[in-house]
Amino acid sequence: MQPRIEQKPRVVIVGAGFGGLSAAQELAGAPFDVTLIDRHNYHLFQPLLYQVATAGLSPADIAAPIRSIVRGRSNQTVMLATVTDIDLKTSEVIADDRRIPFDHLILATGAQHAYFGHDDWEPFAPGLKTIDDATRFRARMLLAFERAESETDADERKRLLTFVVIGGGPTGVEMAGAIAELARRALAKDFRIIDPTSTQVVLIEAGPRLLAAFDPSLSEQAQRSLERLGVEVRLGRAVTSCDADGVVLGDERIEARTIMWGAGVMASPAGRWLNVPADRAGRVMVGADLAVPGHPNIFVIGDTATVNDGSGRPLPGVAPVAKQQGYYVARKLIAENRGQPIATPFAYRDFGSLATIGRKHAIMQLGRFKLSGFVAWLLWCVAHIYFLIGFRNRIIVALNWMWNYVTFQRGTRLITGVREAQMRPPHSSGHSNRNAA
Amino acid sequence: MQPRIEQKPRVVIVGAGFGGLSAAQELAGAPFDVTLIDRHNYHLFQPLLYQVATAGLSPADIAAPIRSIVRGRSNQTVMLATVTDIDLKTSEVIADDRRIPFDHLILATGAQHAYFGHDDWEPFAPGLKTIDDATRFRARMLLAFERAESETDADERKRLLTFVVIGGGPTGVEMAGAIAELARRALAKDFRIIDPTSTQVVLIEAGPRLLAAFDPSLSEQAQRSLERLGVEVRLGRAVTSCDADGVVLGDERIEARTIMWGAGVMASPAGRWLNVPADRAGRVMVGADLAVPGHPNIFVIGDTATVNDGSGRPLPGVAPVAKQQGYYVARKLIAENRGQPIATPFAYRDFGSLATIGRKHAIMQLGRFKLSGFVAWLLWCVAHIYFLIGFRNRIIVALNWMWNYVTFQRGTRLITGVREAQMRPPHSSGHSNRNAA
Repeated sequence: MQPRIEQKPRVVIVGAGFGGLSAAQELAGAPFDVTLIDRHNYHLFQPLLYQVATAGLSPADIAAPIRSIVRGRSNQTVMLATVTDIDLKTSEVIADDRRIPFDHLILATGAQHAYFGHDDWEPFAPGLKTIDDATRFRARMLLAFERAESETDADERKRLLTFVVIGGGPTGVEMAGAIAELARRALAKDFRIIDPTSTQVVLIEAGPRLLAAFDPSLSEQAQRSLERLGVEVRLGRAVTSCDADGVVLGDERIEARTIMWGAGVMASPAGRWLNVPADRAGRVMVGADLAVPGHPNIFVIGDTATVNDGSGRPLPGVAPVAKQQGYYVARKLIAENRGQPIATPFAYRDFGSLATIGRKHAIMQLGRFKLSGFVAWLLWCVAHIYFLIGFRNRIIVALNWMWNYVTFQRGTRLITGVREAQMRPPHSSGHSNRNAA
Repeated sequence: MQPRIEQKPRVVIVGAGFGGLSAAQELAGAPFDVTLIDRHNYHLFQPLLYQVATAGLSPADIAAPIRSIVRGRSNQTVMLATVTDIDLKTSEVIADDRRIPFDHLILATGAQHAYFGHDDWEPFAPGLKTIDDATRFRARMLLAFERAESETDADERKRLLTFVVIGGGPTGVEMAGAIAELARRALAKDFRIIDPTSTQVVLIEAGPRLLAAFDPSLSEQAQRSLERLGVEVRLGRAVTSCDADGVVLGDERIEARTIMWGAGVMASPAGRWLNVPADRAGRVMVGADLAVPGHPNIFVIGDTATVNDGSGRPLPGVAPVAKQQGYYVARKLIAENRGQPIATPFAYRDFGSLATIGRKHAIMQLGRFKLSGFVAWLLWCVAHIYFLIGFRNRIIVALNWMWNYVTFQRGTRLITGVREAQMRPPHSSGHSNRNAA
């Protein structure tokens, strides 16, 4: 520990996602010692992660080093570490065998994909939460086309050219649309033997419609747009089994070598660290002021929390909720520190929801106002570029999008970081050699 | 095998580097069936790889999918595969258990870093030849700063803030300059405990001067520029040992956690596949027409070959040599096919050599003409952006450079693809957990 010259209250923020960064931003210049802990050295703009997975953007386009963001704030320190527990008795966060004491704690650790009892599906149907997930999926998907090109067995070739996306939420819809466009436009003329436009993309949703958070009329619009891109949408059917060769939906089997999981997320284990009640998805139940019951100095925000305000309706796991909660908690701490505590509970202001389908279609909803089509897509672009953290990222992303839009190309189609073993179908005899490592 | 409708002569090109791509480009539209085999799906613009390793550019900025480059050429096929041998009796290339028959073969498989009897140094002093090498080094280097920030032991902190580059050729000079600038400019204000400007960068060269291929006066200029950036240059001293804690130069030991190898390359094993004589660096000795003695239909070009034309002076292992050799072989094949064989041997046209030192200094040499300083750096930028394959890459790279130049920032400072084991010093007790994976 460093010697403490001034005895300012110590705020520890765990997680530099939208929630944690917003709290830190609001605390800039306030009379607190702020420590921001994350297990990555960058903030990830998660809503565009599917663009990295489908070769539209580079990882650095949607990530900004946390230290750069925080640099100018003299009251803030960044720590690259993985939090494993919290000691409530001593008020310390335990990260990589170190103990970081706090007076106030903000947990904003997000969520990760979850298989709800089917963890054995993960190797066959990976999820999409980190940059490494995205580059791995990109390699897997691009390798499927490469392997199909040199495959002589027609059944195996079909399996390689079938892509299954499980889950009809925003991630699933965006992924299915982007894969279909990649195959039908960007890759269309790149192969000599296979025809990438014959690629089959299947989107599976267990519920009765896609994008359940939107109005049913918009769900239908989204489905029609996807089908126009060539995506097969299967509604009301849950996946009952998943293996290296495909998925099973009750009595139907879809043979596919590339499967993506977008059907469920689970909050990070903050509830376990605190030993407090959590809901079925692992979200800590917090009070109307976002504090943990019994621990008025510990707040949980974003995807890790669910507000138990009696309304019964949980807030969606989206960036605006996390950001507003981060700002709220920071303002609350500042006000209390001034001796003017805030009594008003957290209230979410909905500025609308957006989801995109392929290269020129999106849907948008704000209360009763609904919009779909190209204008909604333009709004989606503007909103996402505007909210991307860091000026550099904004121009590079805008440029990449313009480029992709005008040319149908995908500039980041790199297969990197792949071991020989992953390049081969599970049944073939793998061999390792130095060149391929 | 596909049924062959026309019996055009089959040209197989192994390697889509500068040499292989140039040959393919020249053969576009010619009456040959061309197959281009590479173990990656992209062409790598290797001269800028050090920029990826030092967080200046993204991998996709310096790589272009081979299929996109070749797309419009109806006589050319791309194959993603690793060549392991050549069957001279049947005239077939063996790649991933497949056999690809050829009438003419062009081997352009490049070189990889080599330790010349010290392969055990590789884990401690990795080289820089592939995108995965570059992103791994980037993570290693950035993690050293992160670990130094949380390190309490002063000796270990110094070890973490010492970077050793072995080899005073262009790669070593570029790396040393870029690391020094990253530490002294981009990272200067990002940490609270350590002072990145106190980073020590040591460049070790066994020979009497840096950049031996240039005029001695330019070598001196380069050395002075590096020293102005804060790099310590040690000349005339060879590394005698290398381990996890540093390097030994005779009786001196330099403690360092991050070491980079730029001291030697070895040609890819084409000589072994062909069972023909190679020089000490594994380069196949080819005739003045770049054909392998005794095999007039097999050519070896670029870093994999050395021309045995009696002059005794080997050509440098640089992109222009590989490109000119690729064009030459392709033109030779086309001329022979027309019944007008070319008798003139390959002659290298030197358009000058360039090397860059940091953010605004370069040296340039063309015959007796010498240039150094900012103007040479501008020329270097123009040349590199001009030769980058693909229009998109050019504008993105130009933008990134402008951004880095104006702001001293490094936009791609991402630590990705790192396992827990690599994040910890070798002597600490590692533990794995899911969050860190």
